[in-house]
Amino acid sequence: MLTRILTQGPIPRVEIARRTGLSQAAVTKAVAPLIEAGFVTDQPAVPAEADNQLGIGRPVSPLTVIRNSVSVIGLKVTPTALIGVTTDFTAGILTVRHQKLDDTTPDTVIERLTDLAKELIKSAEVTAGPLIGIGVAVSGDVDARRGLVRHSPLMGWRDVAVADLMAKRLKVPVVVTNDVRALTVAEHWFGVGVDADSFAVVTIGSGIGCGLYINGEVVSGAYGVSGELGHLPLAPGELVCTCGRRGCVETVASSDAILTRTRETTGRPRLDLAGAIKLAHEGDEHAREAFDRAGEVIGSALAAMVNLVGPELVVIAGEGVAEYDLYEERMRQAFADHAFGAAGNCRLMLRSHTFDDWARGAAATVIRSYVRGEPPLQR
Amino acid sequence: MLTRILTQGPIPRVEIARRTGLSQAAVTKAVAPLIEAGFVTDQPAVPAEADNQLGIGRPVSPLTVIRNSVSVIGLKVTPTALIGVTTDFTAGILTVRHQKLDDTTPDTVIERLTDLAKELIKSAEVTAGPLIGIGVAVSGDVDARRGLVRHSPLMGWRDVAVADLMAKRLKVPVVVTNDVRALTVAEHWFGVGVDADSFAVVTIGSGIGCGLYINGEVVSGAYGVSGELGHLPLAPGELVCTCGRRGCVETVASSDAILTRTRETTGRPRLDLAGAIKLAHEGDEHAREAFDRAGEVIGSALAAMVNLVGPELVVIAGEGVAEYDLYEERMRQAFADHAFGAAGNCRLMLRSHTFDDWARGAAATVIRSYVRGEPPLQR
Ligand SMILES: [Zn+2]
Ligand SMILES: [Zn+2]
Repeated sequence: MLTRILTQGPIPRVEIARRTGLSQAAVTKAVAPLIEAGFVTDQPAVPAEADNQLGIGRPVSPLTVIRNSVSVIGLKVTPTALIGVTTDFTAGILTVRHQKLDDTTPDTVIERLTDLAKELIKSAEVTAGPLIGIGVAVSGDVDARRGLVRHSPLMGWRDVAVADLMAKRLKVPVVVTNDVRALTVAEHWFGVGVDADSFAVVTIGSGIGCGLYINGEVVSGAYGVSGELGHLPLAPGELVCTCGRRGCVETVASSDAILTRTRETTGRPRLDLAGAIKLAHEGDEHAREAFDRAGEVIGSALAAMVNLVGPELVVIAGEGVAEYDLYEERMRQAFADHAFGAAGNCRLMLRSHTFDDWARGAAATVIRSYVRGEPPLQR
Repeated sequence: MLTRILTQGPIPRVEIARRTGLSQAAVTKAVAPLIEAGFVTDQPAVPAEADNQLGIGRPVSPLTVIRNSVSVIGLKVTPTALIGVTTDFTAGILTVRHQKLDDTTPDTVIERLTDLAKELIKSAEVTAGPLIGIGVAVSGDVDARRGLVRHSPLMGWRDVAVADLMAKRLKVPVVVTNDVRALTVAEHWFGVGVDADSFAVVTIGSGIGCGLYINGEVVSGAYGVSGELGHLPLAPGELVCTCGRRGCVETVASSDAILTRTRETTGRPRLDLAGAIKLAHEGDEHAREAFDRAGEVIGSALAAMVNLVGPELVVIAGEGVAEYDLYEERMRQAFADHAFGAAGNCRLMLRSHTFDDWARGAAATVIRSYVRGEPPLQR
């Protein structure tokens, strides 16, 4: 019920009844405790005098979530920085904090995350309602149920009990989640998912990730793995991936792969990514070729995904969208070449992207757990 | 409610209440009309005297579907034969009819399908309850909602209104469905799906297909396309697929592709598939290489699928499982090489396969539509 009001509100009781198939009386009964607890209101936003003038005691108003009835913290971990946000009940960002990171050992990062969380808790006390939890988004294989980062190649982590370590220090429920899945939850609850029956979020950047929303839920994988678009065996097999396998999409399409390729073909071993992007924009043939190769294999990977699960639309996000112009054409061409029949009708939507979005995704995951009454951590 | 009793029965009312979160009174109320209509019983199978001896009027028994309360017909269309079955309410096969086909033009096939259905209707009248509908399974792009085969490359069909044409002649609801999806529905309702939270059915043979069951439902694709494992761009790009694209899995792994390759490498242009299989079993290097190539790309395709959607298990089916020994090792090796992390824990289960299973799948689709109260055809 709260989910519907949160994602589809303002919504009248009668409309909830229609969509759920419940009686209006049942809806009213279910909503009462939410109003009682201060999460939801059915009062109009117009001044009270307006009602009195009309002589109506209590007009029938759509149900709305009271945004600042709770606050949430979302944190995103990257090898070089921590990003933290506080949000309201609808994942609207209230405050943002960035913090540089020069050491990726788990102990240090947990310590810094805890400090960042404390700082945000203080700010949240001023701006919003009681804190319902902290979400942490990390790239890699995350066991969300146990709050454990099983393996994050990007961070160089194995079996780090993030939720446990932070919850002990902060005495607040902590949810740990794969970063791409967090972004997918945010799109599901507060983004394209409100209107689309199925969608994929594809993130392009230092890694290539994918979150899927199919049949009414985010796809989580029976063994905790799903959406590993960056590790589909679609590239030529001569290059070894950061994951140790051959032929992964990321061996050609990650920003590191593009940089390595450009360094090799231009004979400039000290080029950085910004330099490679600049060269490509200037029309340098070698730099352009590296982006072309990336675009080609990303397009094939999108086609493979669409041929298998047939989403209504694909949201393309991640820090790599900043260089979208350099690979878009080849990507769309490869997608069109390999998308099967009507699956190719799937729209590819570009989403401008900041690192704050990842942190917001972590917050959205907390909101989802909270509203569903899931235990934050099963010990 | 009926779905639960059908797929999970015999099941006590109290257990349904527990699993659905409904009150036991609500379950009893919902079940009453099903018992009234003769679909479901709560009477024990033991003789009536047993009750009387114990002096109990009406013992509390688990709810069971009355299998022969209805009958269903399932038909599978192939270019060389039609296969028809009648089943009971739990998709148990009662009768089977095979009919050779020497003409694949839509008019002829519809005529023959209608005749076959009439023959089966007669047999069903003797063996089971009233006919609830006819299911037709065809390979290719099927618009199930409109009962239309949009494109079946295998049959050479475009926009054939199968359901409409047959329903007119037979005055019975007709459901048309993609054959792999029908097999997936059958596994979902009456096979591995009863115990697995997610699974894939992969069919190997003249085409490579895949049905996915994820988040509580068969994946149908926003535009009607999904599970096109045979058309993932995982093979070298030099060969053109029957679908017109380059690099599809089927260019290397379909039975036709294996035969073509063996003919080329052995220099025996008149070899048939049975001959190629025989050569491979005898250890002919060229024939074995063709199967190795197929196994390699099938294994990569399975890994790609598992990396994206992470099913609990994969059922491998299709007529190609008869030659499974010829490609299994390479397939499993490629799967292990490319499955990402814990996604590789997914079990690959071999399902011995007959053409009757496809027809049974079509019947299962009818049962699903019927139980869900879906209109058989939206005109
Ligand atoms: Zn990889
Ligand atoms: Zn193809």
